[in-house]
Amino acid sequence: MPSEITTFASLSQLIDHQKCAKFNMSSVLTSRKQDYSQWYNDVVLKGGLADYSAVRGCMVIKPHGYALWENMQAVLDKMFKDTGHQNAYFPLFIPKSFLSKEAAHVEGFAKECAVVTHYRLKNDPNCGGVIVDPDAKLEEELIVRPTSETIIWSTYKNWVQSYRDLPLLINQWANVVRWEMRTRLFLRTAEFLWQEGHTAHAAKEEAIEETRRMLDVYATFAEEYMAMPVVKGVKTPNERFAGAEDTYCIEALMQDGKALQAGTSHFLGQNFAKAFDVKFSNRDNQMEYVWATSWGVSTRLVGALVMAHSDDSGLVLPPKLAPLQVVIVPIYKGEDSKPRINDKVAEIMKALKAKGISVKYDDDDATRPGWKFAEYELKGIPVRIALGVRDLDNNQAEVARRDTKEKATYSLDGIADSVETLLADIQTSMYNRALEFRNTNTTKVDTWDEFVKILDEKPGFVSAHWDGTGETEEKIKELTKATIRCIPLNNEQEAGACILTGKPSVQRVLFARAY
Amino acid sequence: MPSEITTFASLSQLIDHQKCAKFNMSSVLTSRKQDYSQWYNDVVLKGGLADYSAVRGCMVIKPHGYALWENMQAVLDKMFKDTGHQNAYFPLFIPKSFLSKEAAHVEGFAKECAVVTHYRLKNDPNCGGVIVDPDAKLEEELIVRPTSETIIWSTYKNWVQSYRDLPLLINQWANVVRWEMRTRLFLRTAEFLWQEGHTAHAAKEEAIEETRRMLDVYATFAEEYMAMPVVKGVKTPNERFAGAEDTYCIEALMQDGKALQAGTSHFLGQNFAKAFDVKFSNRDNQMEYVWATSWGVSTRLVGALVMAHSDDSGLVLPPKLAPLQVVIVPIYKGEDSKPRINDKVAEIMKALKAKGISVKYDDDDATRPGWKFAEYELKGIPVRIALGVRDLDNNQAEVARRDTKEKATYSLDGIADSVETLLADIQTSMYNRALEFRNTNTTKVDTWDEFVKILDEKPGFVSAHWDGTGETEEKIKELTKATIRCIPLNNEQEAGACILTGKPSVQRVLFARAY
Repeated sequence: MPSEITTFASLSQLIDHQKCAKFNMSSVLTSRKQDYSQWYNDVVLKGGLADYSAVRGCMVIKPHGYALWENMQAVLDKMFKDTGHQNAYFPLFIPKSFLSKEAAHVEGFAKECAVVTHYRLKNDPNCGGVIVDPDAKLEEELIVRPTSETIIWSTYKNWVQSYRDLPLLINQWANVVRWEMRTRLFLRTAEFLWQEGHTAHAAKEEAIEETRRMLDVYATFAEEYMAMPVVKGVKTPNERFAGAEDTYCIEALMQDGKALQAGTSHFLGQNFAKAFDVKFSNRDNQMEYVWATSWGVSTRLVGALVMAHSDDSGLVLPPKLAPLQVVIVPIYKGEDSKPRINDKVAEIMKALKAKGISVKYDDDDATRPGWKFAEYELKGIPVRIALGVRDLDNNQAEVARRDTKEKATYSLDGIADSVETLLADIQTSMYNRALEFRNTNTTKVDTWDEFVKILDEKPGFVSAHWDGTGETEEKIKELTKATIRCIPLNNEQEAGACILTGKPSVQRVLFARAY
Repeated sequence: MPSEITTFASLSQLIDHQKCAKFNMSSVLTSRKQDYSQWYNDVVLKGGLADYSAVRGCMVIKPHGYALWENMQAVLDKMFKDTGHQNAYFPLFIPKSFLSKEAAHVEGFAKECAVVTHYRLKNDPNCGGVIVDPDAKLEEELIVRPTSETIIWSTYKNWVQSYRDLPLLINQWANVVRWEMRTRLFLRTAEFLWQEGHTAHAAKEEAIEETRRMLDVYATFAEEYMAMPVVKGVKTPNERFAGAEDTYCIEALMQDGKALQAGTSHFLGQNFAKAFDVKFSNRDNQMEYVWATSWGVSTRLVGALVMAHSDDSGLVLPPKLAPLQVVIVPIYKGEDSKPRINDKVAEIMKALKAKGISVKYDDDDATRPGWKFAEYELKGIPVRIALGVRDLDNNQAEVARRDTKEKATYSLDGIADSVETLLADIQTSMYNRALEFRNTNTTKVDTWDEFVKILDEKPGFVSAHWDGTGETEEKIKELTKATIRCIPLNNEQEAGACILTGKPSVQRVLFARAY
């Protein structure tokens, strides 16, 4: 019944009318300017990614958030397999004594781990509940894995005898627990989901090459799929993984100018091989310790994705990872016009699906288009198509892109092709915008005053000289809360003076306040 | 260099020669006849599916076993999504008090759970190790989930207000822990991987329908993918899931005549809704408790697959789930003939891959064909193609199927088509053989003496009358170790007398000794 729509000059006007009439959906979120931290929580909760749980520091990953993680997993898993890795699964529990075998490792993890001490409950004789059965105490306590180097290397001992057994290129998808004191949805939770690669090699160079290869995989994933530019670099000794000889990382910049470590790849030297006595006989029949790497990314990436791209109306998801890429909303009054719209939508959906584009038709009568528009904006669906009877008459549709919120009228002829192009454009635009943001917010400074001023006034990466000592690094952190995020790979060598001590330096490093 | 092969009358002869000359690979496994239980462990360990770990009752799933599980996951996940379910993720830990909220549930799980009591270790003042920090005791202990009904229903309370929020159709892929006293690789481990569906409904009938739908999904998966026939049935009250009103199951028969419960689907009534106070306002604006189901299958299925099909030479995997479907082994002496073989293999692989068939070319020079043949038999690769220079001259290849070990000569013309047909035939044959085995080993008995005799002399399913009481069921179990596996769905109603008590019965039920 097009006549019912004609009281509005345009489709957009109708929508805006409905939207404003019912409620202003964008007002459900705190704005970034008002309170960035609250905005983040709002987007995660109201965007349907996660929920708080009854367990301290643990979250519930809701279907929309989990679908996003599944898409990330699928891409990463393929990249791992394409680089020769296989998946396996190791126990959740680590005997307490294993943790102690690598000195730095236990130092790094012992203070924040969940400890299983008993294996049975019994009825409480005093009331209706249950209590821990004191007779069911474990001889040796078990640690819920905070990371799996120890349990894995205790296993590798049985798998490696000869150089012919190497390399072992294994990855595990798993949950891990670190008893963090302050938690944030996705960014820092007591339990989180991740993958951890653990490889074993006959030669040092080969292990270093593997460490760098997986760093490149992570960087490619972040940039090409998450549309999030990253700096590849190496951590200072202070910031190394507990038990590593070198920790490589990718660092991204969030919209509030804080940095976020998005993935790490560790060269572990022979530390774990020595701790668990893993040796192999080389080609000359001599026994040598095995060389190791480990590397991981986690559900933290979901938080990074939110912070890198989303806006005051909700999530903005890159098309390559969005659980749903296109939503189609019919605009009609009265049932008469619906069949015509349905037919056309079926046609469009078929064409989109043939291209591998995920699409949903939301023809639920219980909610109005304006409400739907706001809902899909909140959830970050990259492209929305609105189709009314007048549109059909004109052989066109209104297409809105989530990243810029721009709307355009598209011809229905070849609309699947146009949408495919649009999705690719959104992916590229999102990356470019984030890259421009990072470039704008990366500042070279040469004096301490400037350093302190920039951190407060124009948060972001600060590229500055540092004298190379852990003491200076610690002092700068104390004074400014800024840490050295990394020494970028292929860093330009340039003589200078440390911003704090004035001592000579050979290169700039990247500082920032960080998540 | 064909001349080097011609000292052997045929390719098979060469292979047999090499195989016997080096070692007899089949002898690495205990035979089923000799010791079924040891045979199973041998197949799992030497077939590369799993390994023991340093943690009591926990196993390591090795790459070949994990790839099998991944294939199972992929199929099941699609079936769940096709029936409208979404994945989500809930915390690993359950507050102790949550377990007690549903009386039957806590009774069923409290006696076998891992309990986290502390969240920190500290250096042992007396030696180099670490000890549990007594100052880091949790106020309320956390249970490592043995199943997630309680933590999920505590969450659903916040997600459900109105009938519009229902149904909730959610699945979770996760690890769970049950502190079993006697463990078996895959079949019963302290930690195992599984999926658990947890759905919430506005109406009882809808929940029952969901329970049955998911049972059907499991049965379809078992039969069409695992090639393992199953009986669909309902458990007796004694064997119900702790907290369920009805437990449906699929039961399979293993080669030693013992039954194995391969999946369960529970109608939970309003038990968990009442325990966690989950109500919704119905269309008449009245508050009602929500109806629930839960359903799960686990890595136990990998054990079932091994026990259903494998033989004394190793694993026999159904093509639809095998991590690798076809392996090609070149037969040559001297490097001269290899390029010709390589070229033809490249062509065959391309044709197979175009059909979505996974294939590996094993041209490793370090091992001989005979060793490779035995190795791929051990690992259960469904089809092996051997290609020598004489074969090329004759435009043919030797194709061996793993299930029957039959070899045949295939023309290289359209070999991809022939192999595709062969894979389908192997899948069907495996199912038919298992079905025949089950039919042969399902016996109707009408007297107690016959019942006892059959259980010892011809293990399998025993179809017999039972008076319907828990006491009789318990007594039969005590006397024979046989349990009622299920009351088959659509069971024929037939008047009879209970084999133990002689009391009247309206139908036969399926008994067996079981894993």
